[in-house]
Amino acid sequence: MAAQEAIYSGKAKKLYRLEQNLIMEFTDNITAFNGKKHDVLSGKARVNNDINSWIMEQLGHKGISTHYIRKIDAIRAEVKELKIIPLECIVRNYAAGAICNKLGLVYGNKLDKPIYQLCYKNDALGDPEVSEYEVSSLGWASEEQLEYLHNASMKINNILIDIFDKADFILADFKLEFGVSSNGEILLGDEISPDSCRIWDKNTREIFDKDRYRKDLGEVISYYEKIALRLFSSLND
Amino acid sequence: MAAQEAIYSGKAKKLYRLEQNLIMEFTDNITAFNGKKHDVLSGKARVNNDINSWIMEQLGHKGISTHYIRKIDAIRAEVKELKIIPLECIVRNYAAGAICNKLGLVYGNKLDKPIYQLCYKNDALGDPEVSEYEVSSLGWASEEQLEYLHNASMKINNILIDIFDKADFILADFKLEFGVSSNGEILLGDEISPDSCRIWDKNTREIFDKDRYRKDLGEVISYYEKIALRLFSSLND
Repeated sequence: MAAQEAIYSGKAKKLYRLEQNLIMEFTDNITAFNGKKHDVLSGKARVNNDINSWIMEQLGHKGISTHYIRKIDAIRAEVKELKIIPLECIVRNYAAGAICNKLGLVYGNKLDKPIYQLCYKNDALGDPEVSEYEVSSLGWASEEQLEYLHNASMKINNILIDIFDKADFILADFKLEFGVSSNGEILLGDEISPDSCRIWDKNTREIFDKDRYRKDLGEVISYYEKIALRLFSSLND
Repeated sequence: MAAQEAIYSGKAKKLYRLEQNLIMEFTDNITAFNGKKHDVLSGKARVNNDINSWIMEQLGHKGISTHYIRKIDAIRAEVKELKIIPLECIVRNYAAGAICNKLGLVYGNKLDKPIYQLCYKNDALGDPEVSEYEVSSLGWASEEQLEYLHNASMKINNILIDIFDKADFILADFKLEFGVSSNGEILLGDEISPDSCRIWDKNTREIFDKDRYRKDLGEVISYYEKIALRLFSSLND
């Protein structure tokens, strides 16, 4: 392992080859604002691998097809290799983040219906928001793939809302990425962790996710660990 | 008329009441870049009223329901009163304008499939681009209305491409607005003119539309008049 070159080095994860599959290795790097803010937070790799593995397993139990195979060790998981569809699928249950300024919405307000958004994964262009019509015209995904992504995102939203609710959290919003496996199946890829979700305490509305880092609220990893603890113990309730 | 107050004063048009209908009066004002650039171009009211009336009549012949009733005089038309749906429906056949920078497209390239975009009509927010999911969640239009807008925009695109092609023009893109009439019908509203379309010569690709004003190419109204002349004489070919 030590001698092997990463086949992909992202902002918070690296990928290595493992026979026909891949190893997804979490790092302690944290970034925000398109990479303009970045730090190393000791313990992030471990807690995000814990949370992601647990959530991916829960989704698998509920019939969602994901790239996740198994947890290897504290910071690594084995996953299937995907040809990533270059879209971020965002689901918003509450108004927070960029959409508040864009549409004049009040932070923290529940949306009447979840909002589904697509962003084109392209750092040079700043990951612009795109419509399904743009994606389909420009060939980044087919109409059939777009329909799958929307349906799967909505189904995953319902499962995740329930999972977080059982741990007394509100799932305000989250981001998903999908890809196509070697046998042509669309699978959920990437990670689901406090880096990719907004997670608020159901009663106090306290922020537990990466907004603690974006907003300089401190104790980022300690709050991530509280999420893990509350999620993992919620199954026994 | 002279004594009557306009019930709406927009950037390039005014509306007056006329019994149960409205008078749409074109002005010589031209604006660009969200109102930052503005001028008065003598003759614009007349030529845009001419072009809009002619196009709305052609669309009517082809079965498109519009607010247009009749041309009153050089700068006025009678239209049905609409409760405007606060969306701009944009159809793009070629890459031009804001989408080039947004998605890294080359100006002037034909798109494989027309791109349909929605912008939320809100000056304070800068008319942000929105998805059908955002519109539907925030209640700006129903899912049924959104489906009608998309289908009607695509049908109008096919008719307009043909109309402009007969006059040896390329219709690169255009913007539509719709509203709901007093009897609950969705009708095409606003105007279709060189202010709301990108129109290029089919052979030379010369610009004939409002981009002449945006890009300081000069002779704006003379080119608008050439569009009118070529459109109106094309029917006799």
